[in-house]
Amino acid sequence: MSSIVQDAIAAKAASRLLAVLDSATKNDALHRMACALEESFDVLLSLNCEDVHEAREQSISPSALVRMELTREKLQQIAVGLRTMAALEDPVGKVLLRSELDDGLELQKITSPFGVIAAIVEARPDAVTQLCALALKSGNALMIKAGTEIGRTTRAILAAFAKALQSTQIPPHAFTNVEGREAIREILALQDYVDLVVPRGSSDLVRFVSANTRIAVIGHSDGVCHIYVESSANREMAISLILDAKTQAPATCNAVETVLVDQGIANEFLPIAFQSLRWHGVKVRGCAATRTICGADVELVKATEWHTEYGDLTLAIRVVPGVDAAIAHIETFGSHHTDCIVTEDAQAASQFLRRVDSAGVFHNVSTRFADGYRYGLGAEVGIATGKLHARGPVGVEGLVTYKYVLSGSGHCVGQYAGANARRFKHELVESAVSE
Amino acid sequence: MSSIVQDAIAAKAASRLLAVLDSATKNDALHRMACALEESFDVLLSLNCEDVHEAREQSISPSALVRMELTREKLQQIAVGLRTMAALEDPVGKVLLRSELDDGLELQKITSPFGVIAAIVEARPDAVTQLCALALKSGNALMIKAGTEIGRTTRAILAAFAKALQSTQIPPHAFTNVEGREAIREILALQDYVDLVVPRGSSDLVRFVSANTRIAVIGHSDGVCHIYVESSANREMAISLILDAKTQAPATCNAVETVLVDQGIANEFLPIAFQSLRWHGVKVRGCAATRTICGADVELVKATEWHTEYGDLTLAIRVVPGVDAAIAHIETFGSHHTDCIVTEDAQAASQFLRRVDSAGVFHNVSTRFADGYRYGLGAEVGIATGKLHARGPVGVEGLVTYKYVLSGSGHCVGQYAGANARRFKHELVESAVSE
Repeated sequence: MSSIVQDAIAAKAASRLLAVLDSATKNDALHRMACALEESFDVLLSLNCEDVHEAREQSISPSALVRMELTREKLQQIAVGLRTMAALEDPVGKVLLRSELDDGLELQKITSPFGVIAAIVEARPDAVTQLCALALKSGNALMIKAGTEIGRTTRAILAAFAKALQSTQIPPHAFTNVEGREAIREILALQDYVDLVVPRGSSDLVRFVSANTRIAVIGHSDGVCHIYVESSANREMAISLILDAKTQAPATCNAVETVLVDQGIANEFLPIAFQSLRWHGVKVRGCAATRTICGADVELVKATEWHTEYGDLTLAIRVVPGVDAAIAHIETFGSHHTDCIVTEDAQAASQFLRRVDSAGVFHNVSTRFADGYRYGLGAEVGIATGKLHARGPVGVEGLVTYKYVLSGSGHCVGQYAGANARRFKHELVESAVSE
Repeated sequence: MSSIVQDAIAAKAASRLLAVLDSATKNDALHRMACALEESFDVLLSLNCEDVHEAREQSISPSALVRMELTREKLQQIAVGLRTMAALEDPVGKVLLRSELDDGLELQKITSPFGVIAAIVEARPDAVTQLCALALKSGNALMIKAGTEIGRTTRAILAAFAKALQSTQIPPHAFTNVEGREAIREILALQDYVDLVVPRGSSDLVRFVSANTRIAVIGHSDGVCHIYVESSANREMAISLILDAKTQAPATCNAVETVLVDQGIANEFLPIAFQSLRWHGVKVRGCAATRTICGADVELVKATEWHTEYGDLTLAIRVVPGVDAAIAHIETFGSHHTDCIVTEDAQAASQFLRRVDSAGVFHNVSTRFADGYRYGLGAEVGIATGKLHARGPVGVEGLVTYKYVLSGSGHCVGQYAGANARRFKHELVESAVSE
């Protein structure tokens, strides 16, 4: 038996204990984890420094370096994050439904943890701590494979957590550090032990994970977001939303990639928008009509290119005849992530919001708002563009499922069949009440 | 382009229209469908008679024949089922969460349909009509592949529905009949168009579907249910529950397969239980201890056989040292479907209900209650033993997902970053309110 299978078996056993812990025990553990990080500041920073030094020699990208580097401020934020998680409501044990099926026969639908969650995250220490916090809060055991570049840092974080949890009821295998490049393939084959896989990283990683496992996956691979500027749009608002959605953080999945402009206002709107975008360093590509209006500096977008997620300061613009065409474009080329209409016309807005089939449908706001923190969900597991279970930004509530608990006093199904069959009452007792 | 891909494209287009229909239109359509069936009684019965005749010549099993055969009473029940579906609450457009993120920036989480559902069902006319009703009510387009044995019946049902919906806003491709044995493989490859696959039939079918598609699947393959008779159990109650769970419908997935008996009462309980079971025609297999107590008529269960779903009047019995061992057995050999404890000890019951990780955890009731109708969910899509999205019996609410709708007046993320960053309010306005 490989060591990763042994780890998975231990994680599964730990998950059974974690599932029945009360909220106070879990929250106390989160506070201890925060303290442990604070006490280990110096060790963590020094080991992280070694990781960063080694990564720099391997000519890693500057943005990746920033993400992997720990600072005293980042560590403080992480500790705050753990304490914030402790303050959130416990997602486990919520009674979603309570129904009296018959006299003395009560059905309850109660939230419960998944079991074992395997997270595959990029080289970011804050992703490691956040997943630990999310898993513990939701009563799941976590197997975590972080980017190899932060090997020393990850080991040190998990060691600090392990020490902090020694004198608590949290089982030692609540968190398992999985190492080695082959580990991802091994994790994806653990369908007998792992209940959910959470990949957090590049689109390629998420695609690879989804294509190579039979375990359920929460994640998204593409963020091809649109802003449609309808003919009644407030022009200034439209430009400021486009600039925010494109330039505020162009590499993020909720940045806009394509702007659709109603043909009724294209001649008037596009030249001004084009100027603004150029001033902000945005390279504009577009359809033939956009090129005609804005000039030959605009590179033509081929029909096959409207799917593109640029992830940088490049923006595609297309002139469309109206809201139907805009929706059809988004349907054809979008990734069901987040799409926005800018309009002053309530009818057009309502049409768009109802008909566009995306995890986020926005009216007069930047696509960049699609985010668990901004939505107020607390820490974010990830953003799901699939439709099953969780969609859009997923918080800790995405890491629980539910079970049906039925209690009676000897009730048999045979009593409800045949000539003198008893009839069910199906009386809702209460609903959506926490335990 | 194959005809099934063309069908899928048409279904996708239809799904966009279905998604935005109001409740009244959908409910009116369900009533028209019910009337259409009533008006087509004679034609349906005569075509079904041809199907049954042909199937009988191919020596189909008697139970399958019963399931495929239409009678006037069955058709009446089906019509009632359609009207009951019309009376249920609309699962689409429910506001699950409403939060004011900041002044004038409102987030809503609203239920919405999946899009296109592909159902693969056995040769049962009532399964065809039920899936049509579930899909329409939940605003999804349906591609349905029914058992080839009821080809004429299925065509006639869908023709009656199509005629009934001609003068309504329901698009013609709301329901698509998919035919031919190769069709299943083709459906499973339609990940670009189909959002959810619902297999209803044998375990083998569900296993095949899950293993051969990248589309999300709601279904279950195994029903290895347990009853654990704890030492404080009311003996009579235990026996009547075991008899109900084993004999009331042995072929169903929620029938019991293994009874675990606490060793503290095994000597006293097992001989009586064994007698009762024999009187009811149940063949008992068991562990060595069971065999010692009940005699050599009990066939020994090998260590590898505890996973077995007998699906007939065979029952396995194992003597276990206590609740921990019972839970461990269920964990190792169960299928996370439905498991029951019989006990008068509240503490033991609570332990079992909290710790057993199954879709249904029962106390002093028959496992046969695990069913959408008995749970009061209305029509049943199926029973899910996976944990993602839906678990246990799945009603019409299992066929919707949600989307986040965010409305503002030009809000940019840049305003919430940097030195003078605005802060989010995240004030819940209301929650769990229907539109």
